[in-house]
Amino acid sequence: MLNTLLIPQGFKTFVTNVGIKDATQDFVCIFSSIMCVACGVFTQNCFAGCSVLITKEHLKNNQAKALVIISKNANVATGLEGKIDAQEIIAKIAHELSIDATDVLIASTGVIGRRYPMDKIRLGISSLRSGLNTANFVEAAHGIMTTDSIPKYISVAVGDAVLVGIAKGVGMIEPNMATLLAFFFTDALIDKTVLDKIFRKVVSKTFNCLSIDTDTSTSDTAIILANGLAGSVDLDSFELALEEIATYLVRQIAKDGEGATKIIEVIVTSATDDVQAKMVAKSVVNSPLVKTAIHGADPNWGRVAMAIGKCEDARGINPDNTVIRFNGIEVYPRLADEKILYELEKSLHNDEIMIEIDLSIANGYARVWGCDLSADYIKINADYTT
Amino acid sequence: MLNTLLIPQGFKTFVTNVGIKDATQDFVCIFSSIMCVACGVFTQNCFAGCSVLITKEHLKNNQAKALVIISKNANVATGLEGKIDAQEIIAKIAHELSIDATDVLIASTGVIGRRYPMDKIRLGISSLRSGLNTANFVEAAHGIMTTDSIPKYISVAVGDAVLVGIAKGVGMIEPNMATLLAFFFTDALIDKTVLDKIFRKVVSKTFNCLSIDTDTSTSDTAIILANGLAGSVDLDSFELALEEIATYLVRQIAKDGEGATKIIEVIVTSATDDVQAKMVAKSVVNSPLVKTAIHGADPNWGRVAMAIGKCEDARGINPDNTVIRFNGIEVYPRLADEKILYELEKSLHNDEIMIEIDLSIANGYARVWGCDLSADYIKINADYTT
Repeated sequence: MLNTLLIPQGFKTFVTNVGIKDATQDFVCIFSSIMCVACGVFTQNCFAGCSVLITKEHLKNNQAKALVIISKNANVATGLEGKIDAQEIIAKIAHELSIDATDVLIASTGVIGRRYPMDKIRLGISSLRSGLNTANFVEAAHGIMTTDSIPKYISVAVGDAVLVGIAKGVGMIEPNMATLLAFFFTDALIDKTVLDKIFRKVVSKTFNCLSIDTDTSTSDTAIILANGLAGSVDLDSFELALEEIATYLVRQIAKDGEGATKIIEVIVTSATDDVQAKMVAKSVVNSPLVKTAIHGADPNWGRVAMAIGKCEDARGINPDNTVIRFNGIEVYPRLADEKILYELEKSLHNDEIMIEIDLSIANGYARVWGCDLSADYIKINADYTT
Repeated sequence: MLNTLLIPQGFKTFVTNVGIKDATQDFVCIFSSIMCVACGVFTQNCFAGCSVLITKEHLKNNQAKALVIISKNANVATGLEGKIDAQEIIAKIAHELSIDATDVLIASTGVIGRRYPMDKIRLGISSLRSGLNTANFVEAAHGIMTTDSIPKYISVAVGDAVLVGIAKGVGMIEPNMATLLAFFFTDALIDKTVLDKIFRKVVSKTFNCLSIDTDTSTSDTAIILANGLAGSVDLDSFELALEEIATYLVRQIAKDGEGATKIIEVIVTSATDDVQAKMVAKSVVNSPLVKTAIHGADPNWGRVAMAIGKCEDARGINPDNTVIRFNGIEVYPRLADEKILYELEKSLHNDEIMIEIDLSIANGYARVWGCDLSADYIKINADYTT
């Protein structure tokens, strides 16, 4: 699927290095020759960055023609100067592309609390018009990486239209009604209200069910642009396709979590409601003791019981009615004997770990993704800026 | 202070190894010749262990004569068998000491989901009566350790009375209206209602302001026993003394946090209220990205802004009115230049790190403690049971 990336009609890309931090690509612009219907979902962090604030404003009319993504500097906690910098970038891009500034969206990711190197960015923008090429979303996926070890991209056909998704993110990931950086492009023709509804629904079931380290980024942004060139599509198929590629990107992000060696999927069934199910699932997937045990293939399933029990939303949860399965093996309430522990330990050497929890209360359901916690997470994050 | 531990009158201790896991001490009994006024605070985890459930029941009349603490096995998620085991232990101890079973309290700590080795424990209890000696709280503090690297104990005089505290805990520590294992013994004479009020107040300002790794133990228990032999004391002095020794123990626990090399203190001022102040402070002290940056002495203060911003209780929080100080150095809103970053980096090599956050909203205040996150935390927890 990755080697034959389908390209939606009408999009062009420009990916370059302007020298924000090092010599890797750090400046991406995606341009649609046709006005797009556009929807976005953003971080709930109160220290949200300038890019998030501006893009939210520009999306009020649900239309856009260009999206610029700057990586290696988040332009967050940079005060009034940071806002002025972002507005200058937007104005210059709009001028280069001969479009309205309000039709330009911006997203940023990287270190917090440092101003953009504006001279370098100005120089980069000056070659934008001549540099825009046939859309290359693989290159764009590379351009938005920070500490990611692999680019994350995927495409799928929906009727005559194509839907492409790219994403980045490996740390500071616990999206809260929002997500990390993820962008979707399609030439399907979809009404803005419908697209917005579908997009929010899918994001809430995919990106909002992902957690690497419980830290909610100040730059989380998910955007979808639909330029309509391929005409209308079956909406159910479109929603399914969007969920499929969003899930694929979420799993890619979990696998590439900072220091991660294993992806963890937690499924909670029969909770009081979906809200409680998600809270219990997140409590388990975020528990450092569960994550380290899985990292070490230690069959210490009691930590899953602890993580269920510490959940703030305890409505109806009763140890006597709870069932815990670890990689398909029941470990509670059936007391794990040596044989079960041996089987479990063996299965914990897999790359994909599944924890299933049945609360026997009602019909609440959630599925969330995360990763193990390794010494490499510490190494990566102990000297990020120095 | 540690070398001249004061001993309250009327207490005896018995500390031994019954062989729960290895050859280290794992069975502690503290006995008062006089009936004590007794108060306790416990974990809110729904998977609370059998010891917690039984001790809560036995404390309903606020009196006790004996406390038994078993380490290296938590007796949690062990079903009906676990409850029967705990009740048998209590009955046998009551018989040995010729007291009522309801005057015996029990606390446990260690692996979750394994039954006690009852034969070994029965054998240990059989030498209890003959083994009770002049109180040795240093030995008792050793006996309750699991992965702790140092025993935690302290004593202080209050008028004619003495107050002793012992505690254990290095991981699975995010007390929620409760605490880890901490026990206080005094010969002061105090009314049960007054003692309960003072104890809860102090626990909420000390043990409940501590977090090592966001995981709330299923065994958290804090108990105070007062036998009255030294007569009455000034209550304000007693509360101050209790807060002083509880704070000392909390700082000892944070310093000895699994893999910790530094203690972190976060102070939030001018929050909407104390609840919000504590939530913001906890969000910062628990952020893995803040903890790893401090571990690596990386002056990445932007992560503190992120951790403030991700806090669920965002009432009134505005980046424009927020001030962040890191080891006394203002890093926000004054944008940190190279000189400030250099100063900050130098200060981050200290053993004690202080983060001060002023939200400029109202009068809410909180002080919490935690520790850095190192590769050793992963090492300790990746193969705990195997």
